[in-house]
Amino acid sequence: MIETPYLLFLGDAPDALSAKVAQGIKDWRPEFAIGQYRMEGCKADMKLPDMTLADAYEAGARTLVIGVANRGGVISERWKDVLNRALEQGFDIASGLHNLLRDEHDLAETARRHGRKLHDVRVPSVQYPIASGVKRTGKRCLAVGTDCSVGKMYTALAMDKVMRARGMKSTFRATGQTGILITGEGVPLDAVIADFMAGSIEWLTPDNDPDHWDLIEGQGSLFHVSYSGVTMALVHGGQPDALILCHEPTRDHMRGLPGYELPSLEALRDTALQLARVANPACQVVGISVNTQHMSAQEADAYLAATEARMGLPAVDPFRHGAELLVDALAAI
Amino acid sequence: MIETPYLLFLGDAPDALSAKVAQGIKDWRPEFAIGQYRMEGCKADMKLPDMTLADAYEAGARTLVIGVANRGGVISERWKDVLNRALEQGFDIASGLHNLLRDEHDLAETARRHGRKLHDVRVPSVQYPIASGVKRTGKRCLAVGTDCSVGKMYTALAMDKVMRARGMKSTFRATGQTGILITGEGVPLDAVIADFMAGSIEWLTPDNDPDHWDLIEGQGSLFHVSYSGVTMALVHGGQPDALILCHEPTRDHMRGLPGYELPSLEALRDTALQLARVANPACQVVGISVNTQHMSAQEADAYLAATEARMGLPAVDPFRHGAELLVDALAAI
Repeated sequence: MIETPYLLFLGDAPDALSAKVAQGIKDWRPEFAIGQYRMEGCKADMKLPDMTLADAYEAGARTLVIGVANRGGVISERWKDVLNRALEQGFDIASGLHNLLRDEHDLAETARRHGRKLHDVRVPSVQYPIASGVKRTGKRCLAVGTDCSVGKMYTALAMDKVMRARGMKSTFRATGQTGILITGEGVPLDAVIADFMAGSIEWLTPDNDPDHWDLIEGQGSLFHVSYSGVTMALVHGGQPDALILCHEPTRDHMRGLPGYELPSLEALRDTALQLARVANPACQVVGISVNTQHMSAQEADAYLAATEARMGLPAVDPFRHGAELLVDALAAI
Repeated sequence: MIETPYLLFLGDAPDALSAKVAQGIKDWRPEFAIGQYRMEGCKADMKLPDMTLADAYEAGARTLVIGVANRGGVISERWKDVLNRALEQGFDIASGLHNLLRDEHDLAETARRHGRKLHDVRVPSVQYPIASGVKRTGKRCLAVGTDCSVGKMYTALAMDKVMRARGMKSTFRATGQTGILITGEGVPLDAVIADFMAGSIEWLTPDNDPDHWDLIEGQGSLFHVSYSGVTMALVHGGQPDALILCHEPTRDHMRGLPGYELPSLEALRDTALQLARVANPACQVVGISVNTQHMSAQEADAYLAATEARMGLPAVDPFRHGAELLVDALAAI
């Protein structure tokens, strides 16, 4: 278990999106996020108090969570001074990056010397099976996106919150480091060996009560050439009964892929549904989740209304307006 | 480098398909395959001389290649006695299984004591990049299947053979253990970490001469729920200019997935092409490769003629009739 509360390390984040991990913790477990630590040039801001290590420790923080991701997920040499000092001053460190804290000899040595823990939440701790494709009891909902980082995790967490408030049976199923840091369990899917990806999702969403919903955190996009294989494993391993389409309308190209246009919501709907029905012929697209953070309230309302009319599906921004309408749609199937 | 020639270990193979590795070596590097070793209950047969370890060593074999795959790729305890004796009698062992020879303490100890090598060709030896999606020079052809184990590797190897004979520039690009055992290099794709799958295929098929073809070995199937994510990474990482559809017409369900029907060739064509065009809008489906091993010559001819007429594409069984027509189709684009 990771000791709370956290000091969120934002490092030298090149943009706000790269601090997705910190943002997720702040939004869904605000009681864990008592401050942020930013280095020179940091372009992300959680609107939390900027704290020194000493201040944060004094305020009760016991774990420094690396809340920023480089492309490729490496531990930057520029961060090392802060990380080593954090260990010396009594913090554990938790990270979801590809490169492991435990493999950095200086950090491992400092942690050992001071009796601190290095939590690499990305490392799979389970030997997952090969997917069997056998139909499971209970229901599953998967968020699929036109692109990476369009709000799939937020959508699932927001729906889970509404469903619990309504007394419905639901479980948020984390498939990425942020989700795992938030909930304390899950499958670090992008670190799973290729052959076991779909099996890991079957393992994560086992047989359940007929009226129980797993809300599976999506990853990547079927249209993102770097990560589409990961998404495909979710679509087939998750056997979703329901899909939520996720979109960010202001993006002019796929994240990290200049020259690649985002697909339309229609293309996502048709492609995802066709593929999902291989594993679950009853799968339906039930709603659309739009990330309107870069739009005014008026623009967002207009976009959502137009999308709803065009697609014939409820379209909401769960972060802005809550996920009530998406849960209504889920409850209706 | 793996020392040749080989004794092919078939163990207690439950069926012929599970000995795909041995069959591939025998078909494409017959000069390496001087004999087979079968245990009681073995259901596979390479039509090679059955040899004892002593006979095979006497005949020149220096490596015992594990030519059989269990579901999940584990090293069976039932094989251990033979494997240990092989090491004692002077053989190296080569394996493409998920579970590694080097992790079996008894084998590692026996190998150490006798100065023999354990080759785990499945283990990635490269830290692959995240896929960039950047367009590469040269041309690429990918074999995609309606199911697993329908002849995708055979198709690519057969085309490569024809192209070399014609003086065309081509390279077979191995993505699985058999291909790697045959060619001595490649990417063990199903053992690659999820996030790096597409990047490993970009790495495997780099910039090349404008008239050079990479013939990329396919894996899994977009319609096989256990492995579809791996296939997706090939479709997007490979940026294929040309797709060959591969099919085995006599199978009544997807391999290992009772209750899952095979898709039609039309469904495979449409789905694969639509997904491939995300990475390469110029991609075309150029031909169909049919594995007719379970059909009579007459049945095969009738099936191929009907398929060719229905799909408007050349349809051949490259193992039975050679890959000339598929190469003609490739040369025409």
